[in-house]
Amino acid sequence: MANHRLVGLGVDDIDTPAIVVDLDAMERNLTRMAAFAQRHGIRLRPHAKMHKSAVLAELQVRGGAVGVCVQKTSEAEALAAAGVNDIYISNEVIAPAKLRRVAALARTLSLREGGRLALAVDSVQGIQRLAEVLAGVLPDAAAVLDVFVEIDVGQGRCGVPPGDKAVALVQEIQLYPALRFAGLQAYHGRAQHLRSPAQRREVIARAVADVVTTRELIEAAGFTVPLVTGAGTGTFAQETASGVYGELQAGSYLFMDADYASNEPDAAQPVFEHALFIKSQVVSVRAGHAVCDAGHKSHAIDSGLPRVHALEGQPDLEYANGGDEHGLLRPAGVDDSLPMLGDTVWLIPGHCDPTVNLHDTMIGVRGGLEAGIVERVIRVDARGALT
Amino acid sequence: MANHRLVGLGVDDIDTPAIVVDLDAMERNLTRMAAFAQRHGIRLRPHAKMHKSAVLAELQVRGGAVGVCVQKTSEAEALAAAGVNDIYISNEVIAPAKLRRVAALARTLSLREGGRLALAVDSVQGIQRLAEVLAGVLPDAAAVLDVFVEIDVGQGRCGVPPGDKAVALVQEIQLYPALRFAGLQAYHGRAQHLRSPAQRREVIARAVADVVTTRELIEAAGFTVPLVTGAGTGTFAQETASGVYGELQAGSYLFMDADYASNEPDAAQPVFEHALFIKSQVVSVRAGHAVCDAGHKSHAIDSGLPRVHALEGQPDLEYANGGDEHGLLRPAGVDDSLPMLGDTVWLIPGHCDPTVNLHDTMIGVRGGLEAGIVERVIRVDARGALT
Repeated sequence: MANHRLVGLGVDDIDTPAIVVDLDAMERNLTRMAAFAQRHGIRLRPHAKMHKSAVLAELQVRGGAVGVCVQKTSEAEALAAAGVNDIYISNEVIAPAKLRRVAALARTLSLREGGRLALAVDSVQGIQRLAEVLAGVLPDAAAVLDVFVEIDVGQGRCGVPPGDKAVALVQEIQLYPALRFAGLQAYHGRAQHLRSPAQRREVIARAVADVVTTRELIEAAGFTVPLVTGAGTGTFAQETASGVYGELQAGSYLFMDADYASNEPDAAQPVFEHALFIKSQVVSVRAGHAVCDAGHKSHAIDSGLPRVHALEGQPDLEYANGGDEHGLLRPAGVDDSLPMLGDTVWLIPGHCDPTVNLHDTMIGVRGGLEAGIVERVIRVDARGALT
Repeated sequence: MANHRLVGLGVDDIDTPAIVVDLDAMERNLTRMAAFAQRHGIRLRPHAKMHKSAVLAELQVRGGAVGVCVQKTSEAEALAAAGVNDIYISNEVIAPAKLRRVAALARTLSLREGGRLALAVDSVQGIQRLAEVLAGVLPDAAAVLDVFVEIDVGQGRCGVPPGDKAVALVQEIQLYPALRFAGLQAYHGRAQHLRSPAQRREVIARAVADVVTTRELIEAAGFTVPLVTGAGTGTFAQETASGVYGELQAGSYLFMDADYASNEPDAAQPVFEHALFIKSQVVSVRAGHAVCDAGHKSHAIDSGLPRVHALEGQPDLEYANGGDEHGLLRPAGVDDSLPMLGDTVWLIPGHCDPTVNLHDTMIGVRGGLEAGIVERVIRVDARGALT
């Protein structure tokens, strides 16, 4: 059955494996995060690399978000094509062919009300290439591309070190009228998954100090820093409390995953619920284990295997790796009961972003996993948007 | 640039990240495997869950394969829609809605020349459900579905234990005129990745003994076992040498991956070359590491991170996990040289099957990775075929 025909049917009618979104839980997460941002007077620009979906981006914007982030040019294109207007590619783009697409998209979005494209940079060469391409595509300089300078505040990936190198990039940006220095990109991804709030606080305090130092150097060179953007679902209360960050990029809060749920909660942050599940079915049973039809072609395992989400009356089970197409289910509770052939088993994926990327659609259910009704089928617009 | 426009252009024009198939290497692999099967008089039914592509399945069939295996009903549907006629779903199907699709596909294929669908079973209930659905869809019993009884020869996943339980399933199959007992499914997946040939031989010897015992019991009950099917790229010479297996299901031989390349070679098997690569680009460089644009959204990491495939003159690099969208590249050779911003870096994925599943197309290149020309764009027909 094509997924769009599911609308109005019950959870039982969803074929497996499939992503099921608990819309009630998702909307509570959305509201909690929006309320947090509003209460603290901080901008929210959720990372749409998490859900890859234009309708969910629009929901977030209607809930107060200023726009969304993405990581790839093709993600920006997919979301823009589906109606999202304010997009920040929080990542470096180097290939001239891709930069031409960035420039074309910047022009397209600049013609829409509230439309805008921004990009991160971390090299002089990257800025020069970008400016060169923009000069070809936006010759009238009517449209301007916002550029964030990425500094590495501990993630150990892209970005220049905090300090002088960032100043040099800000100076380089000034040379090109089609570029506007929009601020600093300062995201600490690894901090998000440190388990204790104290560890997360300590690491983010160092990141904030790095941002402050860099900002002072940029200001001393005669430039203002319009915005500092960063933060994720594990730490955003810390970036907010710093008073230095002006924009939060958290994305996973909307769905939550097993890995984020392993963090000890931080009292300064709202509590988020699991809203993303894999519905799977038992296809084989024997003494000691059952096998379900969801393997790592259905859910990403980079942040660990999924957890089994036992509904009332269902046995406690542990999920073990059964390859791409299967999951092994073993008793995890006090008794050794197993599900029966044909039973539904719900899984909470370890990591939402790459799990969503494995699916063309997500089935949005109203009224819970036990007896809910399919309300909408959510297209994963940027599924497979790699370039 | 849409990928189909790449045909005739050079490797340099392929945007990143992308799957690039070295067609010369792939065709050598295809020929070696076909020659092996022909020399030993054994049927070859490659597992198309590896490449998920109808044109590659057709290439294999033109090279002597009797058809292909898949793991999912929707994979079978996708390949059948793209012209593949002889398909074996080497997996259990339990949901009535899916079984109706199996039945419909069986009828569709039975109307094609050489068309045929087969399915694995491992439970009485599964057989009963299948027969019930088939009775509705194929009421004239003109078309018959081939059913393989899966026995677990050491994989520890689906299948009944070798012995009496398999006999009971064969007896159950006889009750339904729309079902034909086609033989035993006996695949030992874990054996494929044992590193030493001696280990692999030992484990497959036990699997063969299990098959022989089970076959004798089935024959003693008055039934013949038309075929034993199984084997993978790591062990197929052993199943072949047993004289018990009549059909090989190896799939990965066509592309090879970093995990299979870690096996110590078995002199009894042909040597296969890497034919599947991820083309990636360096998007950030700093002291100590570079960052490329291929993370685990571009390649599966269930069997380990990708290896960097250094072309002549390129530095030896090690790939470290940089998340969904990035890879960290560190010096691995005697010197500590790194690639430059914008450079191409080639990766060999850890596991081909789920890597292919992340891409809509694969770019087939003739003439090598250095200066080859794009000859064809290969559609991943069963990409995302989960159900």
